[in-house]
Amino acid sequence: MFLYFFILYSLIIIMQPKRAVISLSGGMDSLVTLATAIEQNYIPYALHVNYYQNTQEKELKSFHSICDYYNIKEENKLVVDVDYLKKIGGTSLINGSYHKSDNQDEIPDSYVPFRNANILSIATAWSEIIQADAIFIGASQIDYSGYPDCRKVFFDAFEKTILYGTKRAKPVKIIAPLLNMSKKDTVCEGVRLKVPFELSWSCYYNNDYACGQCDSCKLRLKGFKEANVKDPILYKNNI
Amino acid sequence: MFLYFFILYSLIIIMQPKRAVISLSGGMDSLVTLATAIEQNYIPYALHVNYYQNTQEKELKSFHSICDYYNIKEENKLVVDVDYLKKIGGTSLINGSYHKSDNQDEIPDSYVPFRNANILSIATAWSEIIQADAIFIGASQIDYSGYPDCRKVFFDAFEKTILYGTKRAKPVKIIAPLLNMSKKDTVCEGVRLKVPFELSWSCYYNNDYACGQCDSCKLRLKGFKEANVKDPILYKNNI
Repeated sequence: MFLYFFILYSLIIIMQPKRAVISLSGGMDSLVTLATAIEQNYIPYALHVNYYQNTQEKELKSFHSICDYYNIKEENKLVVDVDYLKKIGGTSLINGSYHKSDNQDEIPDSYVPFRNANILSIATAWSEIIQADAIFIGASQIDYSGYPDCRKVFFDAFEKTILYGTKRAKPVKIIAPLLNMSKKDTVCEGVRLKVPFELSWSCYYNNDYACGQCDSCKLRLKGFKEANVKDPILYKNNI
Repeated sequence: MFLYFFILYSLIIIMQPKRAVISLSGGMDSLVTLATAIEQNYIPYALHVNYYQNTQEKELKSFHSICDYYNIKEENKLVVDVDYLKKIGGTSLINGSYHKSDNQDEIPDSYVPFRNANILSIATAWSEIIQADAIFIGASQIDYSGYPDCRKVFFDAFEKTILYGTKRAKPVKIIAPLLNMSKKDTVCEGVRLKVPFELSWSCYYNNDYACGQCDSCKLRLKGFKEANVKDPILYKNNI
């Protein structure tokens, strides 16, 4: 009798749906990250943080299109406006054109101060309420723009912050499935997962045709080229 | 000649004004914290985070009154609305009456999920732009409501997150001067620093007369009583 209940209880625990908050900007990395979470049987809760960046409208459209594609319901979406990043400023991604840095070792002016910590703090607060098991974020420390908050050391430190700063017995974990993937790997993974790349948007600067010149466009184009896959989005001058 | 320039340079470094972001809710703890930062010769940059809590209007008024008292200019203030804590919910501090918990070991329902991490993330982003040396926060782990994000372990973990997640060579440090102070100590410290307690507001629930019943009122009243000081704010039923 005891064994029967024990097995039943274990089965209930195992079969309980896992929930995950996905940071879904609408870019190709967050798209592949969402598809990874779904493949791993997480119920996705999609978080979109609008910080009044140059391409906010386009990214929000991408977010909703991607959610529609994966049948994510309204109640599992959270769109958040953070006007303070606009008020604080200090990045060319907000109200400014992108400035190319000639120094490869320098953190570019597209860096948004502490953006990922702000996004993860919102994601963690939400994860506490919906009792999510994981937060997925599409950061990579291989082909990236040199932002400090895209590195494993940062995510490890943030997990400690969650451990000590939240009330749940089993704190939510941070999963960054692309962390050690190149852009080529990410494209290949996206192809394997059959993601709708055409719905995603990566350009830092333009809302109609991707500029093809900013760091984000360049990394995206490099990834598709190396993976020998045609990028389905529109580029200026048909790059 | 070299020595001359060395001394001059050192003097310039020493005499450079230190800047600090102060998390200023408008409560008595944040007021004493602000006064501490000023005493320590920091130029204060006051941050107020409005998360649509029950007493948001009263707290915002306290924030501005305290800033006026200490001659903090408009450009050194940042008032931030975070609607996501309202959207996420899960706390009685937002759109809800306070529910007393009978279990002393339990984290009360006034806990706001990951609030201090959200506030510190905003403060850190701002500190990067204004090149602040410190972030002051008025948390205490002695006479407190049992929130996990008011403890030293949490702040230590957050400092690591800042270290790895920001681009400055000398990351901003977190200073919580009241961390090991009882409410009585905080009141005594406030008296020593001649803070305008009458401008502060601590009640979780009411905007006109402090209720005297919520955790925050109780802790405040206990502090003033033990310090043998009259609390100048108005309480319901003249407590």
